[in-house]
Amino acid sequence: MDALKIGLLGAGNVGAQVAKTLVEERELIAGRVGTGVKLIGVAVRDVEAPRDWKIPGELLTTDAEALVDEADLVIELLGGLEPAGELIARALNRGAAVVTGNKALLATRGGELHKLAEEQGALLHFEAAVAGAIPILRPIQESLSGDRITKVMGIVNGTTNYILDQMDTTGAAFEDALAEAQRLGYAEADPTADVEGHDAAAKAAILGTLAFHAPFSIDEVYCEGITGITGDDMEAAAASGYVIKLLAIIEKTEAGAILRVHPTLLPRTHPLASVRGAFNAVFVVAENAGELMFYGQGAGGQPTSSAIMGDVVSAARRLRSGTAEVPGLREQAADSAVPALPIKKAETQYYIDMVVADREGVIAEVARVLADHHVSIESMRQPGSVSAEGEVDVEGVDKKGAVVQIVTHLAREKDLDDTVATLKGLGVVKAVNSVLRVEVEQ
Amino acid sequence: MDALKIGLLGAGNVGAQVAKTLVEERELIAGRVGTGVKLIGVAVRDVEAPRDWKIPGELLTTDAEALVDEADLVIELLGGLEPAGELIARALNRGAAVVTGNKALLATRGGELHKLAEEQGALLHFEAAVAGAIPILRPIQESLSGDRITKVMGIVNGTTNYILDQMDTTGAAFEDALAEAQRLGYAEADPTADVEGHDAAAKAAILGTLAFHAPFSIDEVYCEGITGITGDDMEAAAASGYVIKLLAIIEKTEAGAILRVHPTLLPRTHPLASVRGAFNAVFVVAENAGELMFYGQGAGGQPTSSAIMGDVVSAARRLRSGTAEVPGLREQAADSAVPALPIKKAETQYYIDMVVADREGVIAEVARVLADHHVSIESMRQPGSVSAEGEVDVEGVDKKGAVVQIVTHLAREKDLDDTVATLKGLGVVKAVNSVLRVEVEQ
Repeated sequence: MDALKIGLLGAGNVGAQVAKTLVEERELIAGRVGTGVKLIGVAVRDVEAPRDWKIPGELLTTDAEALVDEADLVIELLGGLEPAGELIARALNRGAAVVTGNKALLATRGGELHKLAEEQGALLHFEAAVAGAIPILRPIQESLSGDRITKVMGIVNGTTNYILDQMDTTGAAFEDALAEAQRLGYAEADPTADVEGHDAAAKAAILGTLAFHAPFSIDEVYCEGITGITGDDMEAAAASGYVIKLLAIIEKTEAGAILRVHPTLLPRTHPLASVRGAFNAVFVVAENAGELMFYGQGAGGQPTSSAIMGDVVSAARRLRSGTAEVPGLREQAADSAVPALPIKKAETQYYIDMVVADREGVIAEVARVLADHHVSIESMRQPGSVSAEGEVDVEGVDKKGAVVQIVTHLAREKDLDDTVATLKGLGVVKAVNSVLRVEVEQ
Repeated sequence: MDALKIGLLGAGNVGAQVAKTLVEERELIAGRVGTGVKLIGVAVRDVEAPRDWKIPGELLTTDAEALVDEADLVIELLGGLEPAGELIARALNRGAAVVTGNKALLATRGGELHKLAEEQGALLHFEAAVAGAIPILRPIQESLSGDRITKVMGIVNGTTNYILDQMDTTGAAFEDALAEAQRLGYAEADPTADVEGHDAAAKAAILGTLAFHAPFSIDEVYCEGITGITGDDMEAAAASGYVIKLLAIIEKTEAGAILRVHPTLLPRTHPLASVRGAFNAVFVVAENAGELMFYGQGAGGQPTSSAIMGDVVSAARRLRSGTAEVPGLREQAADSAVPALPIKKAETQYYIDMVVADREGVIAEVARVLADHHVSIESMRQPGSVSAEGEVDVEGVDKKGAVVQIVTHLAREKDLDDTVATLKGLGVVKAVNSVLRVEVEQ
C-alpha cells in the first residue's frame, strides 16, 4: 500500500517536535506501523515564524483546509476551539483519522466529535490531551475495559502543582511562586486557565467521559482554583500531616457522576502527595484492579510529542489494517446512562480553619453546630497542642481569639455549606479562614 | 453478529474470577465490546474441585481440546509450559484469539507463538503476564509506539518485594520474612521461582521483547535472587540512604540489550523505593516521554482478572471489527535487530561491603586495586563515622578488622568482577561480605 499521508496542523512547541520526529524518524515509524508514512504538509499561520525545529520550507502551507482534504491522517495541534474544531470535523467527515491534544475542544465539543467519528467510521485519538506523556486514556479505554472504574483523582496541571509544591517546600507566597513559575516558563503570562483550574476541569471532563462511558462537558465540572490558597493554609496543612494539591476528581455514585476540580488536602503518605514540581500523576480506582497510579511528565514539547506519536502509530496501524475503531464511547450501550451531578451531591471530608472567641464553652458550641447539620468531626486541633488530659493550652490564642482547625468525617457538600453559613453567623466565631476538601487513602 | 464464543482454560484463583465476571457482567461486557459474548465452557482437570466462585456445572468440561476447537476467543489460565503451549498453538492455528497470563510460557516460547499468531492473522494478548492489574504492556506497545524506550526497571514480583520490605521495615531476617509471606499466602510452599528471581526474569524477557521490538527469551536474562540478602546488608544500605529491591532491568545500549534481574540498591528518594508490600511498579524511560511510572497490584485473583478482562474486551472488539492486530512484534522491520548481551557488558554502579585489616595504608591499597581496574569510587564509608577532619574513628572496628563500604561510579560488570577477585586475594582484605548493584536516579 502507498505511504499514509499525514497532515500536521500547527507548528508550535509540540508541533515542531512532531514534525521533526515524522521527518527524522520516518523509517522507525514506518517499521512500527508496518507501512510507510509521509508528512505531506504543515499548516501554519505564519510561514516565517521561528520554530524549535526548522521545518523544511516546502512542507509549510497556510492553507489548512487543502491539507486536511489531502491527508489520510490529520494531527491537530492548533489548540483553541476554532478553527481547530471545524478542521477536525472536516477531516472526520472525509473519513480521515484525527490525532489531537486539544483538551479545550474535547471538553467542550467532545461528545459531538466522538459521534461524528463513529458515524463516519473514522478514528479520533487524543492521548496527549490529558497528562502529556503519561499513557492514561488508552489504559482507561482498553486495559480497564473489562472492569468498572469507580474513581479517578489526578494531578493533571503541572503549573499549579509546581506553584503549590514551591509554596509547600520553600514557604513562598502564592504570588511569588507564580512569578517563579512564569520565569521558568511553567506558567503563561496570563495564568488564568491554569490557576483558576479551567485546564484541569477540561481534563476532568475527558477523564470522566472515558472512565464512565458517557459524554461529559467542562460545564458539568465543578471548578475551584488555587488563587485563594495562602501560606497559612499550606503551613496549617503541613502541621497536620497534609499537603495541598489541585486535584481533578471524578467519582461514580449510585445516582450519577460527580466531576470536580479543587485544592485538596492529602495525607503526606498518599501516593499523589509526593508528586513534585511540574510532574503529573493520575490515580485510578477500579472494582477489580484496585488502586493504580500513572506518573510522568504532563507537559512540554518532547513528552507531549511522544503521546501524539503513539496515537499516530496506533491510528496508522488501524488505517493500514482497514479498521476504524474508537472504543470507549461507542461501546456503551449496556452501561446505564450516567448523569453528571452537581457538587452539592458530593460527599467528602472537609478541613475548616477558623478563629473563635477564647472562652469556655466555645468548642462545645461549634461542635453543636456541626452535629446539628449531620457533620461529624474526625479530628480537632488548636495550634499549640491539646494535652493528654484534653486541656487546651494557650498557644495559638491571641487578642483576636483562638484558632481552631477541624477535619470532618465524610459529609455532604450541602450540609457542609449550611454548617459554614451557620458558623459564620455565630457570635463566638470571629472568622472562618479556610474551608478545603480532604481526600484520605481509600 | 452472533455472540462471540469464549472458552476458558483453567479455573484457579484468577480463572474462577474471570468466569464470574463473564457470567455476572455479561451485559456490561457486551456493551463494552459492541456485540454479545458467551462463555461456552471452562476446561478443568477436576470438575468437582472447590473454587473461589462456583462455576455452573454445565460449563465445566475436562476436554480442553474440544473447547479450543469451538471457541472464537480462548482464555488460557492453566499456567506452566504444557499443555498450555499446545492448546494456545491449537487455538492460534484455527485463527482464534488468545488471551493469556502465562509468563513462563511467553518467556520461553513467546517468539514462536507471536510468529504463529502473525502467520495466522490471530490475536495474542497477555497484559496479565506482567505486573497483574497494572496496564504496562499495552502502554509500551501502543502509547509509546512512536518513541524509543531506552530502559525499563520494574518491581514485578510481589512476593520478593513483600519479603524485602519486611526485612527493611521490621529488621526481620530473610527466613522469617519468607515464613511470614508464606503464612499470608504471598509466597508459595516452594518459593524458588520467586526468591531466586525466575518469575521476575520471565517478566523481564517479556518487557524486553515489547520494549525493544525483538524477541528475547528467559535464557537471555541474567538472574540473581534475594536469598543471599542478609539483615546486615539491609541495615548497611539503610544507613547510607538506600533500600534494597529486586529489580527486573532491561536496558538498550549501542551494542544491544541487557536484561537482568538482581537485588539492587536504590536511593530512598527514587520513585521505586517507596513501593511497599506486595505492590508492583514499573519505571520506563523513553527518549521523548522521559520518565514514566506505573503502579498497582501485581497479583491476586481480582486484580489479575481485571487485566485478563481488559484483553478479552480488546480482542473481542477487534474480532467484531474483523481485524487481527498484534502490534509491537510484527512491526519491527525498520528497527534494527537488537541482540541480547551478556551481563558482563552491563555498566552499573556497585556497592561493595568488606572487612579489611585495621591498619594504616589499607584504604589506599584498596583504592589502588579499584583504580587499576578502571573502577572509580563515588563514596566510601566506614560504619561508625568519618569526622569532619577526615579521621576515621574506631567504631566499626573489631578484632576481625574494619568494615568498609564503597559505592562505585558507573563501571563495567567485567571490571568489577576482576576488582572483586583481586580484592579477595589481597592480604589486607579479610572478607568481601556483599557485592550489590546500585541504580541511582537518572
